Amino acid sequence: MLFQSIRRLRHFVYDILQNDAHDTLFSRCVDYFLIFLIMANVAAVIAESVDQWYYPFQEYFTWFENFSIVIFSIEYLLRLWSVAEAKPDNTTWRQRWNWVRSPSALIDLVAIAPAFLNFFVSFDLRFLRILRLFRILKLTRYFVSLRILLVVLSKEKGSFQAVIFILIIMIVTASSGIYLVENHAQPDVFESIPKAMWWAVVTLTTVGYGDVTPITTAGKVLGAVITILGVGLAALPAGILATGLANELSQRREELEQHFREELVDGDFDLVQNQTMIDKIRRELGLDKEQAQDIVLQVLREQELERREKEVRQKNFCPHCGEPLD
Amino acid sequence: MLFQSIRRLRHFVYDILQNDAHDTLFSRCVDYFLIFLIMANVAAVIAESVDQWYYPFQEYFTWFENFSIVIFSIEYLLRLWSVAEAKPDNTTWRQRWNWVRSPSALIDLVAIAPAFLNFFVSFDLRFLRILRLFRILKLTRYFVSLRILLVVLSKEKGSFQAVIFILIIMIVTASSGIYLVENHAQPDVFESIPKAMWWAVVTLTTVGYGDVTPITTAGKVLGAVITILGVGLAALPAGILATGLANELSQRREELEQHFREELVDGDFDLVQNQTMIDKIRRELGLDKEQAQDIVLQVLREQELERREKEVRQKNFCPHCGEPLD
Amino acid sequence: MLFQSIRRLRHFVYDILQNDAHDTLFSRCVDYFLIFLIMANVAAVIAESVDQWYYPFQEYFTWFENFSIVIFSIEYLLRLWSVAEAKPDNTTWRQRWNWVRSPSALIDLVAIAPAFLNFFVSFDLRFLRILRLFRILKLTRYFVSLRILLVVLSKEKGSFQAVIFILIIMIVTASSGIYLVENHAQPDVFESIPKAMWWAVVTLTTVGYGDVTPITTAGKVLGAVITILGVGLAALPAGILATGLANELSQRREELEQHFREELVDGDFDLVQNQTMIDKIRRELGLDKEQAQDIVLQVLREQELERREKEVRQKNFCPHCGEPLD
Amino acid sequence: MLFQSIRRLRHFVYDILQNDAHDTLFSRCVDYFLIFLIMANVAAVIAESVDQWYYPFQEYFTWFENFSIVIFSIEYLLRLWSVAEAKPDNTTWRQRWNWVRSPSALIDLVAIAPAFLNFFVSFDLRFLRILRLFRILKLTRYFVSLRILLVVLSKEKGSFQAVIFILIIMIVTASSGIYLVENHAQPDVFESIPKAMWWAVVTLTTVGYGDVTPITTAGKVLGAVITILGVGLAALPAGILATGLANELSQRREELEQHFREELVDGDFDLVQNQTMIDKIRRELGLDKEQAQDIVLQVLREQELERREKEVRQKNFCPHCGEPLD
Repeated sequence: MLFQSIRRLRHFVYDILQNDAHDTLFSRCVDYFLIFLIMANVAAVIAESVDQWYYPFQEYFTWFENFSIVIFSIEYLLRLWSVAEAKPDNTTWRQRWNWVRSPSALIDLVAIAPAFLNFFVSFDLRFLRILRLFRILKLTRYFVSLRILLVVLSKEKGSFQAVIFILIIMIVTASSGIYLVENHAQPDVFESIPKAMWWAVVTLTTVGYGDVTPITTAGKVLGAVITILGVGLAALPAGILATGLANELSQRREELEQHFREELVDGDFDLVQNQTMIDKIRRELGLDKEQAQDIVLQVLREQELERREKEVRQKNFCPHCGEPLD
Repeated sequence: MLFQSIRRLRHFVYDILQNDAHDTLFSRCVDYFLIFLIMANVAAVIAESVDQWYYPFQEYFTWFENFSIVIFSIEYLLRLWSVAEAKPDNTTWRQRWNWVRSPSALIDLVAIAPAFLNFFVSFDLRFLRILRLFRILKLTRYFVSLRILLVVLSKEKGSFQAVIFILIIMIVTASSGIYLVENHAQPDVFESIPKAMWWAVVTLTTVGYGDVTPITTAGKVLGAVITILGVGLAALPAGILATGLANELSQRREELEQHFREELVDGDFDLVQNQTMIDKIRRELGLDKEQAQDIVLQVLREQELERREKEVRQKNFCPHCGEPLD
Repeated sequence: MLFQSIRRLRHFVYDILQNDAHDTLFSRCVDYFLIFLIMANVAAVIAESVDQWYYPFQEYFTWFENFSIVIFSIEYLLRLWSVAEAKPDNTTWRQRWNWVRSPSALIDLVAIAPAFLNFFVSFDLRFLRILRLFRILKLTRYFVSLRILLVVLSKEKGSFQAVIFILIIMIVTASSGIYLVENHAQPDVFESIPKAMWWAVVTLTTVGYGDVTPITTAGKVLGAVITILGVGLAALPAGILATGLANELSQRREELEQHFREELVDGDFDLVQNQTMIDKIRRELGLDKEQAQDIVLQVLREQELERREKEVRQKNFCPHCGEPLD
Repeated sequence: MLFQSIRRLRHFVYDILQNDAHDTLFSRCVDYFLIFLIMANVAAVIAESVDQWYYPFQEYFTWFENFSIVIFSIEYLLRLWSVAEAKPDNTTWRQRWNWVRSPSALIDLVAIAPAFLNFFVSFDLRFLRILRLFRILKLTRYFVSLRILLVVLSKEKGSFQAVIFILIIMIVTASSGIYLVENHAQPDVFESIPKAMWWAVVTLTTVGYGDVTPITTAGKVLGAVITILGVGLAALPAGILATGLANELSQRREELEQHFREELVDGDFDLVQNQTMIDKIRRELGLDKEQAQDIVLQVLREQELERREKEVRQKNFCPHCGEPLD
């Protein structure tokens, strides 16, 4: 009896925390509360670095930090406990172990681990603060578009590898070249190749602070050539990402369409009335309402066209015996 | 009798101000006058901020401002009054209320409201000037390509959300990291994380004023890594916009083609002669004349090909019984 | 007899100067000589601005300038005279007038006009120098890829209009905002909106010289927001151009394919042997050799496939009477 | 006997060094060792430029340099010797000569040549260092994605030519304009057009160091116009590269698909079991595992669909004579 109610509770917790398809008012409130807490944590870390904000309210900051750790720890334990509900037929602990090794669980662990490690090892306060900033990564769970971007990044990693490799070649070449040319004129700034790299990075990425600039004619000519060649390269990852993102989104749209089509071929699903089912599939695929509506309309139109074509085709008779061909 | 002539006047005003399909010399003159007035207003606001231009001609500026408010108020009232003609069978006041809540009507209201509020509340003169600058948004009504860009922006808002989210994560991380590293070397500039954010924004967007730069080796290494990673991200929205714009325009072209095709299947529409109808559809979809002409030619060519193919197919006889296969 | 030999000479001159399809060693030498002369002219203009290069060699520069004007004038007159050969059946003078009004002829005129005007009006020497720089535009005639870029620019002018309009709105808004916020702190730099525009342009284009930067907290926050929003917009034209260029090039490739296909359907043209004809069409469409070869191979492969399919289809018999359907 | 074992050794060396399809633990170790050595060489060149690292460890650097030259020389000779195995039926020395002229062999030669030339001619030590940096190019052999990028660069060279040509026109025009306008106000900085070019390059590429800025109103207006026009152009190569890269990768994917299909049509190749063959084709085409798996799945699905369609079609009988229509 007790065991059954515990299992029911575990299933309830799983629905609230882990199950994306389960979408009630309460689960949404829990999501919004956690999002708010994460953002408040990031704001607190930033605010603590301002002395005139930190010292007067030091105890409030400490209190909020402790409160956050407690909440995030409870969240982590509840997730760990309830994840066993994901595939009821699997072994409980194997599922938990799989979840612990998943990227989102690791992010959750990183969000609370430093606070607990602090009991054993004494960190530098400022370094601890930065570690707390990683809590911002917990937000990835709640943003579909962010996950899509990460998917694109991992898909296009071949292109990025090539670009970063070329960028490194260019930085090494540019800094060596400028070191050769400007070393005599500005021995302090272009003292060695590693020092000249700062100029190369600042120039090739078109940041151009102006703290280090070539002053000799040869240096300026070299700088101009490097800049013209490099300016395109530095913006290349953005172009690759944008193209990849566009492809990924159009592919997802096609998947949604494919899904709808398959449901329609099976026949027992009314596109016009069954809005909740459409919404469910839509959310799983990470598309917004408008796009889904567009696709539904398009599928309906195609169905209509197909139906008409069929009617027309049924009017075709065999030209030799005069009977309809079906 | 009077009622009828008022309705006729209202319809005339509606055609001039609101009806895009109505394209006479007079309506075009009204459009150009309003466009000119909006631009002159923006120019006046900018000119007023220059003391040596403002003080000698103060009364002219005041006169022009009052004249503009009168014109824009009349325009707003005429639009409000005549919009009832849009769908003659709807309730008059419901249509007006719908129009008042539309984005373009709100822009019109924002263009005149501050001047009237000024009678009741006394604004800071400079702040009032900025409010008057919003009149520039009235121009959106007259530029189709601008509306297309806004449509693309709203369609790709998922991608933008992801990019801005990542950008915020990067700014927070970069400013925290540089604060940690450079705080000892430059306690004034990198006093706190919020102050370090100025450096992070200036660097990640590749503006690079050079008013704040890292000076320690660790800061330079961190800055270089952040810059290389960030430089692509900041240019990403442009890439997304460009791809989205290209897709939107090609989609609109397809819509126009689809529209033509459907008209042709119905049979009672001559593409070669009915230029006005083509123009109407064209303007609704926001394409320029050349593009529309290209599409019309293409559709005509395809029709011709189809017609020929039909003829050829009709010539196919079954070689054994001699009867046409149709 | 004389008349005939003059006509033959005119035709020869036309082939050398105007006819792209005519490709002999001599016409290519003339092209390379003119390209070299144009580049030498630009180099001369640049070199003349350096005092220590100009004064010792002043007479050489003058001599070279006079020589260039003579050559370019002769070129212009020969083109004007020989252009009548373009369509031999048209009226001679009408064709010449049409040519005079063409963009490339206007560029040719601009290249020589200032030198002749100089006899009547006395220009500022430095201004005259700049006018001579326009000779660089004469190079457009010799670069196919440059003409393609200009075509793309004119096709995408709708998008550019929208982008420039938004850019102007952003510059006006940004400069007004920063003027409002920074005017008290830096009355010299942000004295008026027009002066603040310099900051807005430098920031929104991410150039970021650093000669003008916000120093108040409000100014920095506003600057950060404007920069993040603007940074994408400024790079937008590049994205539009890149997408447009890719589309234009793929469209041209399709045109070439279409052309080949049409030639092949007509039947009396051997793709494998008739390399010179392929080269001719290729050059007209502005594609490089590799691309053309790719397309030829593809067309050949498709032909092979079609032939095989036909063979397979010929094996289809009518299922009712057992005889082949051909 | 000896001859045969030499040939076997040569074949073994060829497999290890040159044959991409040969993938054993040993060949991979050799690859990783060479990659590590190249990177260590680059690191050494950079480190040598720092005086406080170089002088204490001078002999170690010399020793490492000599060791590297020996290894790279042996590598070059082994490659030259074993390349005869590539096409066993060709003449040995012709193949070697072809290999010596290939880009990757030239890079290998450039990596060792300066060290040997040093015996005859005495170079400036710093210049020699830069020459040693070219060893970084040896890495191109090991990165498929880099080779793809180079292919894209060579394919899109038409577009790049156009962009660089326009960029040169813009730099010449911008520098002449700013020289005309700013020469009186800043005679040192804008002394001549070549000197003004430094400003033009720094501005058009949006680097914006701030060491040279216009100070007159006319100069600022001109600078703003040039910047707005130029900012898009400088980022254009990146856009072209990104689009080209996306096209190239999708084309390669199609090639892989085509390859699979052809293998499947031939019939004696099991996609589900023959993973090693898939891997071989995959590596040749430079795709990662995930992409290949996606394509295999897609091909399998299409095959399944085709099979089903065939079954359905076979069920189509002529409803009147009862015979299958096939």
